[in-house]
Amino acid sequence: MENGAPAWKFRGKEGLSAASAITVRGILFELMANLNADDGRTMVPLGHGDPSSFPCFRTAPAAEDAVVDAVRSGKFNCYGPTVGILPARRAIADYLSCDLPYKLSPDDVNLTLGCTQAIEAILTVLACPGANILLPRPGFPYYDARAKHSHLEIRYFDLLPDKGWEVDLKGVEDLADESTVAMVIINPGNPCGSVYSYQHLKKVAETARKLGIMVIADEVYGHLAFGDTPFVPMGVFGSIAPVLTLGSISKRWIVPGWRLGWLVTNDPNGFLKDTGVLKSLKGFLDISSDPPTFIQAAVPHILEKTNDDFFSKIICILREAADICYEKIQEIPCITCPKKPQGGMFVMVKLNLSLLEGIKDDQEFCLKLAKEESVIVLPGKLSLSNCW
Amino acid sequence: MENGAPAWKFRGKEGLSAASAITVRGILFELMANLNADDGRTMVPLGHGDPSSFPCFRTAPAAEDAVVDAVRSGKFNCYGPTVGILPARRAIADYLSCDLPYKLSPDDVNLTLGCTQAIEAILTVLACPGANILLPRPGFPYYDARAKHSHLEIRYFDLLPDKGWEVDLKGVEDLADESTVAMVIINPGNPCGSVYSYQHLKKVAETARKLGIMVIADEVYGHLAFGDTPFVPMGVFGSIAPVLTLGSISKRWIVPGWRLGWLVTNDPNGFLKDTGVLKSLKGFLDISSDPPTFIQAAVPHILEKTNDDFFSKIICILREAADICYEKIQEIPCITCPKKPQGGMFVMVKLNLSLLEGIKDDQEFCLKLAKEESVIVLPGKLSLSNCW
Ligand SMILES: Cc1ncc(COP(=O)(O)O)c(C=O)c1O
Ligand SMILES: Cc1ncc(COP(=O)(O)O)c(C=O)c1O
Repeated sequence: MENGAPAWKFRGKEGLSAASAITVRGILFELMANLNADDGRTMVPLGHGDPSSFPCFRTAPAAEDAVVDAVRSGKFNCYGPTVGILPARRAIADYLSCDLPYKLSPDDVNLTLGCTQAIEAILTVLACPGANILLPRPGFPYYDARAKHSHLEIRYFDLLPDKGWEVDLKGVEDLADESTVAMVIINPGNPCGSVYSYQHLKKVAETARKLGIMVIADEVYGHLAFGDTPFVPMGVFGSIAPVLTLGSISKRWIVPGWRLGWLVTNDPNGFLKDTGVLKSLKGFLDISSDPPTFIQAAVPHILEKTNDDFFSKIICILREAADICYEKIQEIPCITCPKKPQGGMFVMVKLNLSLLEGIKDDQEFCLKLAKEESVIVLPGKLSLSNCW
Repeated sequence: MENGAPAWKFRGKEGLSAASAITVRGILFELMANLNADDGRTMVPLGHGDPSSFPCFRTAPAAEDAVVDAVRSGKFNCYGPTVGILPARRAIADYLSCDLPYKLSPDDVNLTLGCTQAIEAILTVLACPGANILLPRPGFPYYDARAKHSHLEIRYFDLLPDKGWEVDLKGVEDLADESTVAMVIINPGNPCGSVYSYQHLKKVAETARKLGIMVIADEVYGHLAFGDTPFVPMGVFGSIAPVLTLGSISKRWIVPGWRLGWLVTNDPNGFLKDTGVLKSLKGFLDISSDPPTFIQAAVPHILEKTNDDFFSKIICILREAADICYEKIQEIPCITCPKKPQGGMFVMVKLNLSLLEGIKDDQEFCLKLAKEESVIVLPGKLSLSNCW
């Protein structure tokens, strides 16, 4: 062996590629590979919540200025502290407190690399041996990928299409047991485009309290509500059950590539104190990468100086897009949409496979749509379970 | 219970805070808490590799321009692909290829959130059940924290102070067994300030080949060599054993807060092909956050347009600082330094505790130095094992 080929011994941990295979990224990659390169059509990318490449969705000038100023100052080339720099945490606390019946402190706020890292953080922290978490179905597959990676057991509760995709609270109660640690809600919803009412969110909190679990509220689409129901943050009910709010500037400011998010504890009664959750969270953040310091430094200006016209314009465009999408879907016999989207950037539809010759399931439909029409949409299956 | 306090069931995963307690961040936090706030002295921060707040260490104008231009273009607000955008990967491949006997392809390059995430990635990927990894002692404690978090067994080989902190290659051979997957070298060295010769690095590669393991080469201080020995990248020996090079712009450009790094496979013979390592790495990156897209977009300009004067100036200041530090240490009876630093940003010294009344170990020395003199230095213990 001395001169021959050595016997290399390394292998890669299994499960990592399995986890990635159920992410939106993983599937998009597969779909893109199916585009017909020769037919000269422009791809119509409807597969992820990122319209930033369209000029009408260009972010607010104030946001760009804030980042440029932070870079030019030369003051933020340094490492930042684990939880994020204080001015940024204070600005986020103030921003979120506007809609709450109590005031958040900067210490309630942890900066993360987009909402993505906030999800990673909390699922890692909660993954004690034997624990389980309740996820919505349809949902956002990154939760599945991360829970699997951390060996956190997943149990799915249904969102009810006939009730505007509300949470099946009875189902939640039936699923939970002594080892359940949290339930996740996504509001405004991805992929269903739902926006939950104050009353429904209150019931979610009461259910969580009854079960002794926390609510993880993914509000990455926060404020992007364009239907009749106004957006209400879950944190409003933090005194009923502890709420961890996950958010980012990705969607409201149309800058998903900036990777600035937060994980915020809405826990005015201190339910989480002494449970080890916050300490473990700090531990996670200590051994993880932070958002670039100059982007953190830009946060106060981004949150405070973006004017309302920008937000209104984005809401208008999203509403218009949702209207068109919903109307056109009505004209397509094999597709039905149980509810017009009220917020966010997605709509969930049902395929009538009996009308689709030679297509066996949603996965095949999406692959063929990519190949034949250069239109990228995601299979519902992806958000329904993990069987892609 | 209906109206009383609910029985909250969540707890935080243990081990996460234990892992963070052995990071530089964790210790710095503890030391800072020990500063004497009342004595009005300016703190002298010698505890981490981040001189960016000193005006003489301001980054190159070309680097700032590159980021500002990318933001202003409005073209990089979007999500990026898993491995990073192609122009950035190509620029890094070209930058590193200059010093190699073969040419890297952009496909060999993965962008990461600083070198930190590159370390996280590879240790996660290699943590198959039962596997072990060989780490240098003294070393960089983040490796310990991450290996522990992933349940990857750690075995320490010594760096030899009398031989310029070279790797004890005999020790490496004795430590390795069938389950050893990799060895880590940090060159230029943290915390020892060593720079390894071409001959020594070649021997490292040959040892790795003999053992059937890969070399993880942490070159975050790459090119920051100011002694007699020039910096040679480990990738030069990638045809002997596969080398994973970890690096970033953090140190050479003095922008650790920008969080832009890379994990590069130096594997011209394709030893890693079909081992599952690369697939698993892709899986890891799929479920992880990326560097902000506009920072990725700035990479080609940062690498190509920074002029040599900037690099020479930084090297000069570092050399001067190392000289002063080494000279002054000679004057302090209770501290000895086995070798003048040749690169990087640190120096490793030995305390003679018998000369230090009322101080029982290095940890106490550091705590008192913070309290009494507002000088922050790290205890050697931190890099020697995990017993802080
Ligand atoms: C429900 C949901 N959560 C989290 C994310 C990730 O957000 P970010 O881009 O801020 O990481 C997305 C992105 O599409 C999402 O749809
Ligand atoms: C040896 C070593 N590796 C990695 C890192 C982390 O580098 P980055 O700031 O690029 O994440 C450091 C930072 O001090 C270091 O000293």
